[in-house]
Amino acid sequence: MTGQPVRPRVYLDHNATAPLRPEARAAALAVLEAAANPSSVHAEGRRARATLDGARAAVAALVGAEPEGVVFTSGATEAANLALSPDAACDGRPGFDRLLVSATEHAAVLRGHRFPAEAVTVLPVDGDGLLDLSMLGEALDAVRAAGGRAMVAVQAANNETGVLQPVRAIAGFVGDRGGALVCDAVQAAGRIDCGALGADLVVLSAHKLGGLAGAGALVAASGRVAPGPAVLRGGGQERGLRSGTENVPAIAGFGAAAAAGLVPGLAALRDRFEAALLDAAPDAVIFGREARRLPNTCAFAVPGVAAERLLMAFDLGGVAVSSGSACASGMVGRSHVLEAMKVKASFTSGAIRVSLGWSSVAADADRAASVLRGALARMRAGGRSRMDGMPPARLDALGAALHRGATI
Amino acid sequence: MTGQPVRPRVYLDHNATAPLRPEARAAALAVLEAAANPSSVHAEGRRARATLDGARAAVAALVGAEPEGVVFTSGATEAANLALSPDAACDGRPGFDRLLVSATEHAAVLRGHRFPAEAVTVLPVDGDGLLDLSMLGEALDAVRAAGGRAMVAVQAANNETGVLQPVRAIAGFVGDRGGALVCDAVQAAGRIDCGALGADLVVLSAHKLGGLAGAGALVAASGRVAPGPAVLRGGGQERGLRSGTENVPAIAGFGAAAAAGLVPGLAALRDRFEAALLDAAPDAVIFGREARRLPNTCAFAVPGVAAERLLMAFDLGGVAVSSGSACASGMVGRSHVLEAMKVKASFTSGAIRVSLGWSSVAADADRAASVLRGALARMRAGGRSRMDGMPPARLDALGAALHRGATI
Repeated sequence: MTGQPVRPRVYLDHNATAPLRPEARAAALAVLEAAANPSSVHAEGRRARATLDGARAAVAALVGAEPEGVVFTSGATEAANLALSPDAACDGRPGFDRLLVSATEHAAVLRGHRFPAEAVTVLPVDGDGLLDLSMLGEALDAVRAAGGRAMVAVQAANNETGVLQPVRAIAGFVGDRGGALVCDAVQAAGRIDCGALGADLVVLSAHKLGGLAGAGALVAASGRVAPGPAVLRGGGQERGLRSGTENVPAIAGFGAAAAAGLVPGLAALRDRFEAALLDAAPDAVIFGREARRLPNTCAFAVPGVAAERLLMAFDLGGVAVSSGSACASGMVGRSHVLEAMKVKASFTSGAIRVSLGWSSVAADADRAASVLRGALARMRAGGRSRMDGMPPARLDALGAALHRGATI
Repeated sequence: MTGQPVRPRVYLDHNATAPLRPEARAAALAVLEAAANPSSVHAEGRRARATLDGARAAVAALVGAEPEGVVFTSGATEAANLALSPDAACDGRPGFDRLLVSATEHAAVLRGHRFPAEAVTVLPVDGDGLLDLSMLGEALDAVRAAGGRAMVAVQAANNETGVLQPVRAIAGFVGDRGGALVCDAVQAAGRIDCGALGADLVVLSAHKLGGLAGAGALVAASGRVAPGPAVLRGGGQERGLRSGTENVPAIAGFGAAAAAGLVPGLAALRDRFEAALLDAAPDAVIFGREARRLPNTCAFAVPGVAAERLLMAFDLGGVAVSSGSACASGMVGRSHVLEAMKVKASFTSGAIRVSLGWSSVAADADRAASVLRGALARMRAGGRSRMDGMPPARLDALGAALHRGATI
């Protein structure tokens, strides 16, 4: 016994995955044992089918679409891969000639689309992370002048910074120029109103909403674009757009999480943390702060302080946060999002992401600020950090954990 | 109150999806709330990573492979799609020139492979459903004579009939002729020993083992074949072979189901049902009965009795069984498996599949036999069936349920 009270840990990494909401838990558990294959024709199968139908309606309502437009997938990665095909149809005619993507899209879009590399244009964002509309307009006009059709991919909210793109305006802009808009609303759903995005196809994830991992959706919201062909092929489930037995419990939880509504009070919590952050480190930079942002996300860097060291300090202090720049190559790498925002090079590998959600309370924001304050004080005093006294094996394990990881 | 006692329903459709095993349920629930993103570097993320590692070892052990060979996917459909690529590498050299598949493979193989259509040869099976090895040998020799390399896909056990292919012998046969073997062991795993299949790549599903839907695996069991490229692309999880946040609860349950061992006593239950079936309908045909079969599966038809009518009778009698021939086109169609076995045309749309599993007891087999006996007696007497008194809306619903459905 050290005499130190054990404090519960604080989870502020909702953008990586949200803890399971009670509503989603209950809905999933209600069908966990009963789960039959929805393609079975017996009573058990029909009940599973009815569960899917209910969730389909709830997910459709989340983005103001019809249930028939919802294709359940294994997650948002599959939904994005499915959406971004040159062979999708638009206004009854198949084929897209060009993909225009903003530079700050998630890897599931940037690396997961199915266009040939030479048919893709990556569009720049400004210092606040906002898509450059004049460049988008030029690119759309060029595609149309060549007799082609463009698919545009713009996320509703960025996973690293929380910066919001003006999706509804962009949708009108794209539609007026003959294109179609695919919107990754994974981080926006459940945090801001997504009922009228105006996008043709919307990508959603259950687990970022407080549902279970293992379910996502591609929603054909406008009725203009027919997605396809399927990424996963076989049994022909989901009207042939994704084969594989439907994940009934995860989809049931997805429906419940979608129906749970917006989490209130997030902006106040986030502002509380940011005020404390700027009090502890007046030179801290909060990325995208001049833009409209999600109410739950704060991505920041402190000049001269390495992200690895801060991440470890948060973890050892009992607060789970992320680097904004975990990458798939096995390193805590540079953030393509911050690079696209032309953030100073010394910051692009130094960002910390604090992301709140339904489980967050004021004490969580305060605890994060307090851990940060202590870590900065120790680092600036050049004194011993809690890491300095750690056994080498534990330090190695922490280091190894940092040098692994995928884009999340 | 009708005075009729309500009897619990009997679930004999394990080949469509197995009810959740208690071991799998406990393992999934243990991480349901805690579920963090395994790519997160904080303590929560590292714990989720450790859960994956434990499940990876259990799934590898199920097929006698190393944990490093396991790629977790969203299910067996994705695993099969991932395996069957002309761009996989073998013995350090990339590229397969031809895919040889048995005619009775699951749709996830027959329709989900990634070879161009002209590079695929479908190999016949005999009347018992067994692959024609002389045809396989000829096809392999032809590929090798042309300087090419063949990938062969043969399932361990058929989902409709339970017929077992001699996978270990086929693996040696294929390897001796310079090819690589992909084995769909979805139905075999947990029912027969799969520890030494000898295949290069093995496809597994969690939910057919008694785990949750939403997890599957492709296991590189021999170390000879490096699968790829990924079907789902983005964040680069699973060593770049499948992107998307890992489904930690489903994978945890998968590990527990894999470790649970073989279900004992299935053959005795199946034989009990078959004896009763042949007693009630001496002219019934049990498909694949002359071959080695899974201990849990009985696919049969009764001359002159439509599968739809029997299916409904089972369902109304409280017993969940399947047609062996649900198809993706929205109809109870003809079974490609039975057609490949050259079963009489009048039977190919008339098969019923009874599949037992860990939850089955002798009373279940007896109840199924009793329902069947009653239904056959009514049909043969030309009398009223329980359907004859049903309200039209209920009949319509049953019919609609029959005329939908995917390959499962």
